[in-house]
Amino acid sequence: MDNFIYSIPTTAYFGKGQINILGETIKAQGGSKVLLAYGGGSIKKNGIYDTVIEQLDKADLAYVELSGIQPNPRIESSQEGIKLYRQRGCDFILAVGGGSTLDACKAIAAGVKYDGPVTDLFVDESGISSKIVAAAPLATILTMAGTGSEMDMGAVITVGEDHKKKVLLHPLLNPRFSILDPEYTYTVPEYHSMAGVADILCHLMEQYFTPDVAAKVQDRMNEGVMKVVLEEAPKILANPQDYEARANIMWASSMALAGFQFLLGKPSPTFPLHGIGHELSSMYDMTHGVTLALLTPAWMRHTMSAAPEHLPIFARFARNVFDVREKDDAKAAEEGVTRLEEFYAVIKMPASLREAGVKEEDLEVIAEKAVEDGQLGILAVLGKDEVLQILRAAF
Amino acid sequence: MDNFIYSIPTTAYFGKGQINILGETIKAQGGSKVLLAYGGGSIKKNGIYDTVIEQLDKADLAYVELSGIQPNPRIESSQEGIKLYRQRGCDFILAVGGGSTLDACKAIAAGVKYDGPVTDLFVDESGISSKIVAAAPLATILTMAGTGSEMDMGAVITVGEDHKKKVLLHPLLNPRFSILDPEYTYTVPEYHSMAGVADILCHLMEQYFTPDVAAKVQDRMNEGVMKVVLEEAPKILANPQDYEARANIMWASSMALAGFQFLLGKPSPTFPLHGIGHELSSMYDMTHGVTLALLTPAWMRHTMSAAPEHLPIFARFARNVFDVREKDDAKAAEEGVTRLEEFYAVIKMPASLREAGVKEEDLEVIAEKAVEDGQLGILAVLGKDEVLQILRAAF
Repeated sequence: MDNFIYSIPTTAYFGKGQINILGETIKAQGGSKVLLAYGGGSIKKNGIYDTVIEQLDKADLAYVELSGIQPNPRIESSQEGIKLYRQRGCDFILAVGGGSTLDACKAIAAGVKYDGPVTDLFVDESGISSKIVAAAPLATILTMAGTGSEMDMGAVITVGEDHKKKVLLHPLLNPRFSILDPEYTYTVPEYHSMAGVADILCHLMEQYFTPDVAAKVQDRMNEGVMKVVLEEAPKILANPQDYEARANIMWASSMALAGFQFLLGKPSPTFPLHGIGHELSSMYDMTHGVTLALLTPAWMRHTMSAAPEHLPIFARFARNVFDVREKDDAKAAEEGVTRLEEFYAVIKMPASLREAGVKEEDLEVIAEKAVEDGQLGILAVLGKDEVLQILRAAF
Repeated sequence: MDNFIYSIPTTAYFGKGQINILGETIKAQGGSKVLLAYGGGSIKKNGIYDTVIEQLDKADLAYVELSGIQPNPRIESSQEGIKLYRQRGCDFILAVGGGSTLDACKAIAAGVKYDGPVTDLFVDESGISSKIVAAAPLATILTMAGTGSEMDMGAVITVGEDHKKKVLLHPLLNPRFSILDPEYTYTVPEYHSMAGVADILCHLMEQYFTPDVAAKVQDRMNEGVMKVVLEEAPKILANPQDYEARANIMWASSMALAGFQFLLGKPSPTFPLHGIGHELSSMYDMTHGVTLALLTPAWMRHTMSAAPEHLPIFARFARNVFDVREKDDAKAAEEGVTRLEEFYAVIKMPASLREAGVKEEDLEVIAEKAVEDGQLGILAVLGKDEVLQILRAAF
């Protein structure tokens, strides 16, 4: 097991009605004027907006609204938020939404405490956003499970005309607290609920598929969460208001990225699928989780073939997560991929990039962009050629 | 899933050589004069003491020593520490040792910030130590895996002539940081290493065996850690310097109690086995973990019989932790208990209370004391008669 530091500073308030702690908790953390950020307005339809306002009013907290944060949030949203926060003298940020709103708010939190442009704060060669030395206090109210942003220190922001995805990563970006009410996800449409499930599963897999360094506690906990995701997701399809299923998926989302706890003590991967997936999202505005479901089986088969010395890890995945009984590692590993494909079909993910509307002639550009900032992967290193192979296999 | 709050404020520095962060981290947390507490002096033999002093000196930190904290620590040790801390103007506490030293230091941390006697600070009817409103900053260097005290908010202290075990429980008792170097456990004798393993397993089981409320993420993560404990403990027996095995057992110990994370969203048990075990420890000065190994199988069989409606939980345990294939719940559950007994035999725990030196005529008194503060258990409630039945079955 490699050395590591474990630190999960975010407090999660989980369950029905936890919104009731909102006002007093912001005040206890020194907040008096809140930048209230949200997305396209679905929280106004489902009543969450009204509940939040009621809580803020009850605690005599002033607030300034920043609405309209889009999926795959652009840096301009964060820049607008930074301006608003400063101009109006805010001292606390409250993000209400899914990963996009949360990520935009993390960039705001860091940006308001930094004198230069927020674009300085992307991950640098140190591996984190080393220019971040302070951040405004941030709380989140999650309305969609998947991103994990509610309990992690990362944010993905879209920049420029070519929709480049850039990452902010710093412990100061961890929310002070997050309110996780499974009922708030009841109205998330099926497609987006299941894309969230694919996102959670990918977070877990990208921490799982690393060279084996005997970090067994982490890997076994990870397997446990993966099993729950596989078991619970179909229940949401059957009944979107299944509280227990929504609760388990929501908590799985948070656990999957809390402090990257399942990666502690293991060699750090580059989250290769997320890297390639972001390029697909950029070019086609595809939902993030869907891109991951599309790419994962092809990536697994590529890695199993390119780095057969790691086959035992894929076989272990098949046996411990899918209860595959096959004794031969290669066969077990392949059965694991097949079972994963079957799961993606159950949760109604598209079966191929083609089916999802991707054009064959774009694959090469996507591959090129995916490795623009360096090679991806860890079990098998992915340059442009390898990414292209994976894209073609997923096409 | 029941509502819950997740908060794990302790930072863990895990791995070889992490002691190097000690001085600077204490200073960064505002410490300048450290109360350095340890036990019977084994840290002087194995060199850990010298390393700690070197780190404190290097950081120009003053320190005052409190040595001789005994296993099953008595309140008098903590009272002495409180006096010393105040008299000498300390501002930070550093506990170097196993659970006993850590627990004694938690009582010191709370006691120095409280005007009345530290005995006021035991858990009250609110369920926690509600009189604790502040605590001195505490860091720990763990030299034995098992207790979980390095990442939790609890402490068990022995009081009075009848060696009553009392509990302190408050979020402020969480260490600021803990240094977990698996190499520091290399010299722990086999018997105590394995008693630690039994303690870890019991922490996990007591969070697992609660009425089923579909907190599946928590239960599945718990099962994963239990599997690792079963797999890794025998490796330590075979080679006490097996780094990976020591590392996994050490991290399992911390994860088992970190924020009681596997209990979140579930009905809170009274940790019945710990309750009964403490009475055995009081009367015979038996090692805590050993008492747990002695009691668990009898407690499981009692509960399976007294509350057969919960059999599916025991069957799930057998299937998911021990890979029992039996389809009938009652048979599977019994096979799980048998497998657990076999594991205790592998790690050389005594096979019965009698073998461990307990006298039959004491059983009734032990049962009486165990329920002095109220009934135990949660799947099946344990009054004096039931505890006595369990003790007789374990005899």
